[in-house]
Amino acid sequence: MMNETTWLWIGAIGMLAGSAVLFATGGSRTQDEEGHRLAHGLVPLMAAIAYFAMAVHQGAITLPGGREFLYARYIDWSVTTPALLLALSMTALGGARCRPGLVAGLLISDVIMIVTGLFFGLSDDPVAKWTWYLASCVAFLAVYYILLVPLRREAKARDAARSNAYTRNVPVLGVLWLLYPIVVVLGPDGFGTWSPVLATGCITVLDLVAKVGYGLMAAAGSKAVADGDLRGKTVSAVAETVGAVPSGSAKVPRRA
Amino acid sequence: MMNETTWLWIGAIGMLAGSAVLFATGGSRTQDEEGHRLAHGLVPLMAAIAYFAMAVHQGAITLPGGREFLYARYIDWSVTTPALLLALSMTALGGARCRPGLVAGLLISDVIMIVTGLFFGLSDDPVAKWTWYLASCVAFLAVYYILLVPLRREAKARDAARSNAYTRNVPVLGVLWLLYPIVVVLGPDGFGTWSPVLATGCITVLDLVAKVGYGLMAAAGSKAVADGDLRGKTVSAVAETVGAVPSGSAKVPRRA
Amino acid sequence: MMNETTWLWIGAIGMLAGSAVLFATGGSRTQDEEGHRLAHGLVPLMAAIAYFAMAVHQGAITLPGGREFLYARYIDWSVTTPALLLALSMTALGGARCRPGLVAGLLISDVIMIVTGLFFGLSDDPVAKWTWYLASCVAFLAVYYILLVPLRREAKARDAARSNAYTRNVPVLGVLWLLYPIVVVLGPDGFGTWSPVLATGCITVLDLVAKVGYGLMAAAGSKAVADGDLRGKTVSAVAETVGAVPSGSAKVPRRA
Repeated sequence: MMNETTWLWIGAIGMLAGSAVLFATGGSRTQDEEGHRLAHGLVPLMAAIAYFAMAVHQGAITLPGGREFLYARYIDWSVTTPALLLALSMTALGGARCRPGLVAGLLISDVIMIVTGLFFGLSDDPVAKWTWYLASCVAFLAVYYILLVPLRREAKARDAARSNAYTRNVPVLGVLWLLYPIVVVLGPDGFGTWSPVLATGCITVLDLVAKVGYGLMAAAGSKAVADGDLRGKTVSAVAETVGAVPSGSAKVPRRA
Repeated sequence: MMNETTWLWIGAIGMLAGSAVLFATGGSRTQDEEGHRLAHGLVPLMAAIAYFAMAVHQGAITLPGGREFLYARYIDWSVTTPALLLALSMTALGGARCRPGLVAGLLISDVIMIVTGLFFGLSDDPVAKWTWYLASCVAFLAVYYILLVPLRREAKARDAARSNAYTRNVPVLGVLWLLYPIVVVLGPDGFGTWSPVLATGCITVLDLVAKVGYGLMAAAGSKAVADGDLRGKTVSAVAETVGAVPSGSAKVPRRA
Repeated sequence: MMNETTWLWIGAIGMLAGSAVLFATGGSRTQDEEGHRLAHGLVPLMAAIAYFAMAVHQGAITLPGGREFLYARYIDWSVTTPALLLALSMTALGGARCRPGLVAGLLISDVIMIVTGLFFGLSDDPVAKWTWYLASCVAFLAVYYILLVPLRREAKARDAARSNAYTRNVPVLGVLWLLYPIVVVLGPDGFGTWSPVLATGCITVLDLVAKVGYGLMAAAGSKAVADGDLRGKTVSAVAETVGAVPSGSAKVPRRA
């Protein structure tokens, strides 16, 4: 039967292989495509480091209450989830610079979600624990809001390839990420309904899908965007791609 | 009578309410205004997280000498003080990009100030402790210098609304921040002249004024700047606001 | 005879003096030169803080196996090595913005190198320890590759002063940095062939050369670049220096 360490080794090797595939197949014809290759290649590489650490019994502490807590997961997530959202912002905006406040708000909400999730995992006192969980969920809602309202509006205001890639990626990422707070709450860090092995197995599979599987899909989207940009549909689309002319926010006259 | 935990709850609730007010009343008509809303809304939100952690008896350690040390404050400050200075730089420069070296120097000096302050708080050996305090004060002087000399010169070279907002905010922030090293040195982490309750009460009030009160004032300033920019005084002012054309340093020919 | 603490004090004082010299002699006539002054002045300042901490017996832990581990070095390196590479990128590119993906890839590879090196130092289990060492070396090869292939190509595509400064700095930095994994592996954190005193002495001298010595050389290079830019050789060279017009990647039409 599978034990926890086996799952962690599967995670480490799967992430390393996924990273190699994403780096090998990603393009770098435009800045946008180069950025996507970097982000989607590095995300599983960071995860491979965290999984290896956990597999060799590092990255875990025994809490005062006796519970074994794998904090390395949260360090992984605090780096990889902002990277995934930054790549998604680049898809929407063609370079994260043209709405810096919006992108910063998205990434900071995400980091608050992960850090308060870490505090949830570290806490044993029920009031503290479940307040942290609630805070993490509220931050998650802020991430959803920014993805579904202002960033979606920005993506739709741009060319079709970009808008299509964005509207295809967001629901996949949104549903996959929703499974994490459910698995975490059922596992040993939450109610403990699930055994550590079951929770670790579920998170490993989920992580592989959300990082490698999603990464392959997002890389394909960035390839289509780069194809469109290089076909030279419009001058402005190319300029945006190389980042030379950050386009203004929709609220401000562009040709000021 | 008030105890330390009560003060920490007052901090947590006050910061959360302040964050809600700052997000609700802040504008986002220009990138500059959007950035200010984000920074001034997030600063008390981060502080609320730190105050809540301390109120539920997290974010503190008992040092080898027996002193209870609230390190969560310093984590809060290491994030919130750079955010406040970044917002102030945006006020001066209309986007932090046009003098990246200057803004980076300001934020790094600030982080050195907070981190050496944390080491002061963690130290019991007098030589180490007071050397860290001195280092923190020197870094504070570097922050003052950048605010009062090069950044003030940049602000004055720009339009009146921006220059007014900057010259109104700097002295308020400068005086409020000066009270921190005094309170800290009198409290249990310094000479211990003040009781933990008195020190915690003072820092809570000071934090609320320096984050929520100052934030409201700075948000009003950014509103006036945005009003001016949108009234379309000059083409270049609007362009700076959307960040499309970072203006060059005064030392380099602009029309090169 | 020299003991470990003496070496650490030499490091602290040497770094502080080096920082003062680099700040005092650095120029700020262009954004590029201002950025180099800041980076090369701050690098030994950060190191001085780490050396002082270690000299007053902070920044070290006794590992379960009984080995004294100076983790403060790795915190120092995790900040100072990216700063040195960022300055080198600015030399190559005239502002790190025109190839953000490339610069991010360089800095992230470097941080992975340092963090996996920290895990190597923290580990006692041989499988974990030497896997971390191998991972750190692979990340180091990625740093070398980016410096020697894509970034070198970018530097050569720019003006002669920039290209000369880059091709002079890279081999010096490349050889100096190569000595670290050798010293670390011979010292108490590796095979333990060298005594702690010998390893600390070697790393202190190496750090002073790689931070202060290299910094003086790199600052001279940035001065030559600024001289060339201000002599106004070409319009585009000056524009790149002030960061107003990030030049596109070579792969994308520049005049799109």
